[in-house]
Amino acid sequence: MARKSRIVLGLNSGTSADGVDAVACEIVGRGLGMKVKVLGHVQRPYSAALRDRLLAVMAPAPTRTEELCRLETEVGEEFADVAATVVKRLGLKRVDLIGSHGQTICHLPPDYHRLIAGPTSRHRLRVGATSRNRPRFDGTRVVGTLQIGDASIIAARLRCPVVHHFRQADMAVGGQGAPLVPWTDHVLFRHPNKSRVVQNIGGISNVTYLPAGSGPDNIIAFDIGPGNMVLDALARRLTHDKERFDRNGRRARIGKIRAPLLDALTCHPFLERLPPKSCGREEFGVAWVDRLLSKFKSRRWPLADWLRTGCAFFGTCCMIAYCLFPGQHDLFPFQEIILCGGGVNNPALVFEIQALMVVNESRGRPVDVLRTDDFGIPVQTKEGVSFAMLAAACVDRVPANLPQVTGARKHVVLGQICDIGGNS
Amino acid sequence: MARKSRIVLGLNSGTSADGVDAVACEIVGRGLGMKVKVLGHVQRPYSAALRDRLLAVMAPAPTRTEELCRLETEVGEEFADVAATVVKRLGLKRVDLIGSHGQTICHLPPDYHRLIAGPTSRHRLRVGATSRNRPRFDGTRVVGTLQIGDASIIAARLRCPVVHHFRQADMAVGGQGAPLVPWTDHVLFRHPNKSRVVQNIGGISNVTYLPAGSGPDNIIAFDIGPGNMVLDALARRLTHDKERFDRNGRRARIGKIRAPLLDALTCHPFLERLPPKSCGREEFGVAWVDRLLSKFKSRRWPLADWLRTGCAFFGTCCMIAYCLFPGQHDLFPFQEIILCGGGVNNPALVFEIQALMVVNESRGRPVDVLRTDDFGIPVQTKEGVSFAMLAAACVDRVPANLPQVTGARKHVVLGQICDIGGNS
Repeated sequence: MARKSRIVLGLNSGTSADGVDAVACEIVGRGLGMKVKVLGHVQRPYSAALRDRLLAVMAPAPTRTEELCRLETEVGEEFADVAATVVKRLGLKRVDLIGSHGQTICHLPPDYHRLIAGPTSRHRLRVGATSRNRPRFDGTRVVGTLQIGDASIIAARLRCPVVHHFRQADMAVGGQGAPLVPWTDHVLFRHPNKSRVVQNIGGISNVTYLPAGSGPDNIIAFDIGPGNMVLDALARRLTHDKERFDRNGRRARIGKIRAPLLDALTCHPFLERLPPKSCGREEFGVAWVDRLLSKFKSRRWPLADWLRTGCAFFGTCCMIAYCLFPGQHDLFPFQEIILCGGGVNNPALVFEIQALMVVNESRGRPVDVLRTDDFGIPVQTKEGVSFAMLAAACVDRVPANLPQVTGARKHVVLGQICDIGGNS
Repeated sequence: MARKSRIVLGLNSGTSADGVDAVACEIVGRGLGMKVKVLGHVQRPYSAALRDRLLAVMAPAPTRTEELCRLETEVGEEFADVAATVVKRLGLKRVDLIGSHGQTICHLPPDYHRLIAGPTSRHRLRVGATSRNRPRFDGTRVVGTLQIGDASIIAARLRCPVVHHFRQADMAVGGQGAPLVPWTDHVLFRHPNKSRVVQNIGGISNVTYLPAGSGPDNIIAFDIGPGNMVLDALARRLTHDKERFDRNGRRARIGKIRAPLLDALTCHPFLERLPPKSCGREEFGVAWVDRLLSKFKSRRWPLADWLRTGCAFFGTCCMIAYCLFPGQHDLFPFQEIILCGGGVNNPALVFEIQALMVVNESRGRPVDVLRTDDFGIPVQTKEGVSFAMLAAACVDRVPANLPQVTGARKHVVLGQICDIGGNS
C-alpha cells in the first residue's frame, strides 16, 4: 500500500464560503515519506443563493435546525459535483480516496486566554511576545466544531471512501482542531538547511514555521488572524453588496492607511494571545466589522482607505506572528517564505509581506518570497492538497495533528472514514 | 476476526430525547451469522436542562448554529459518560468497538407521497392497502438527517473505534435512512417455520415483519407512526409540564376513547402512505399535538381521555401497518409478535396490541405476544443492541440496509468509522 501510487482528491471550502476547490493528486508513500504530485484542480463558486444561506447560518443570527440539515445535504452534493468535474476534466480512470474538509459553519476552539499582558503597539508587543510568564487564565466553556457537506453523498457519487471531519479528533483531546496543515507543510516543504515559513492567506490566514533540518515536533504554526475575511466584509458593506471583494487589490493600492482604524483593528484580543490559537468568523466576521464601521461612521473615509488599512492590519498580524518564532529578535529567523491561498492573488496583501521582509534585508539576510507554485503546487490548490494528504494519513493510520501546534494532549489520527462499499 | 468474540457497545437516544442507553454486548461471528449476547446496560436520563435544549433545537423554532455546535460536543460527552459507566459497572476489561446512533435532531427523508387514495376508516384502509395502483406523486425536496453526539469524544474517552452516522449512506442512495433495525431483527429473530413480527414502541414506533424461512430480501419494515411521542406531548401540555409522561399508562387505562379525536388523529397523511416510509418529530411532534389540542379545546375532555384515545390511535397505527403484510386478508400473517422499546412498559399500549390479536384468535390462529426479553434481550436494550450489531457490520464491510425497506437504490455499508488511534 505504502509504495503504491494512489489517486486522491482533496476537497475544501474556506471560511469565506466562496465555493469549492477540488484538487486531484497522485500520492506515493506514506507518513512523512509521502510524495505528492498535483494532477489538476477545479474551483467552482457556490451559487449566490447557496452562499447567502451559508453565510446566514455562519452568522450569530438565528437559524433553524432544518436549514442546517438541508445544507448538510446540499453542500455534500455541491462537493460531489465539483469532485466529479475534476475527475471528468482530467479523464481520471479511478479515484482511490477522497479527503473532504467540508464547509466550516462554526468553530469554537478551547479559549486559552493566554494573554500577553500589555499594550498592543508593535514595539511593545514585540517585546511582550517573548515573555511567556505573564498571568494567564484558562476559560472553561464548551468547545466544538461543525463542518457540513455529507460525506456519504460524495462517497456514493464518486464510488470511493471519503475521509471527513478532520478537526474533531484533535479537539476531543484538548486541541484547537486547527491548524491541521502544518503536518502537510512539513511533508511538502521541510528543508535540511533552510528555515522556511509557509504563509497561507485565506479568509483566515495561518502560518507554519519549519526550522531547518527539524522534525515535526519543532514546527510552530497557528492562525495569525484574518486574510480576506475582513477585506471582503468591508467591500460588501461599503458598496452595499455591489462588490463582494477588492479584485486584485485595486482599491486598496490607491488608499491611505488611517491610523485610528489601524489601532482599533490591532486592538483585537486575538492578536494578544499566544499560540496555540485558531480563529474564524466568530472573531473576525461581519459582526466585528460592523462594529468598526459604526465606530468610525462619522469619518466618511473612502472605501479605498478602509481596504488599504485592512491590508496594513494583515501586515501587522503577520509581524506579530513572525515575532513569536524563536531566534534573534532583530530579524525574522527564516530564509524563505512560501505563500499560498487565494489572498496571494491580491497584490496589496503580498506587498505587506514583502514590506515586512525589509527587516531582514536591511541586515543583509534577505528572505526569498516564494509561492507554492514554485514547488509544483498552485496557490489555489494548497489547502485541497493538504486534505488529500490528511485523508491518506487517516487510512494509513498515521497521526497528523501536532500537539505543540494545536494544544492537543496527544497525537491522534485525524478524520472519520465513510466507505459505503460497492466501489469497484 | 469473524470467529473471535468482540465486546461491542451500542449507544443510542430515541426521538423522545429522554436520555442515553448504553448496552454492552458480546458479538461472535459476522453478517447474518452474528450471535449476540447482552452483557448489561445502563440508561441515564439527560439532565432537564440538556433535554430542554435538545427539544428546543428539534422544534421548528429558531435556534443558532453555535448552539448546535456546542450540543454536538455536550451530547458526545454525555454518550461517552454513559458508555464509561456501563464499562465500569460490568467491569469490562476492554471494549473493541462502539456503535453510537447519536441523538437525532432532524430527519427529512425523501417524501414518497405514495398515497393510498381513499378514506382512512379502518375498514376502507384495509381494502385500500392492497391496491398499489393508485395515483402517486414523487415530491422533490432536499432530504437530510442530523444526528449529534461527537464520535471523536467517545473514541477518545473509551479508547476504541466508534461507528456513527448510520443513516446517511442509505439516504445518499435514495433511501429513507430508516428503519435500520430490520437487518438486525432478521439476524436475531428469524425463524425457519414461524413468521414473526418485531414491534418496537419508542417515541416513534417501527415494525419488522420476518416471514418464516425467508432471507433478508423478503423483510417488510417501516415506521408505523408515533409510540410515546404523542402521549408524552399530551401529558406535558395538559399538565403544564408537571407530568412528562403517563407512568405505566395509569391515566390512559381509566380514560374513554373520544371518537372525534381518534378520527382527527387517524387523518394524519403519514398513515395513508405506503412503505418505504419513516417519520419523526417533524410529523408527530408537539406542533401537531398543539394543533389538535387547539382544535378540541372547547371539549374540555379530561387528560385520561386524551391519553386513552392516543393509545387507541397507536392501535390503529399497528393495524394499518399489519394489513400491509402480504397474506390472507382476514387475519394477520404471523404467529408471534415480539415487543420491544420503552413503550412496552406502558400496559395501555401493550393492551392495544393484544386487542388487535383477537382478529387471529377468533379464527383459531392465535398469535403469541412476546417480548425481546424472552430472547435474552431486555426491551430497553434492543435499540442499543442493534447499533452495536450495525457497528460490527460496518467494520466487517457487511451492507446492512435493506433496499426494499428503506427505498434505497442499493445495498450499502452503514456508518462512518472514527478511530483516532492509540487504543491500546
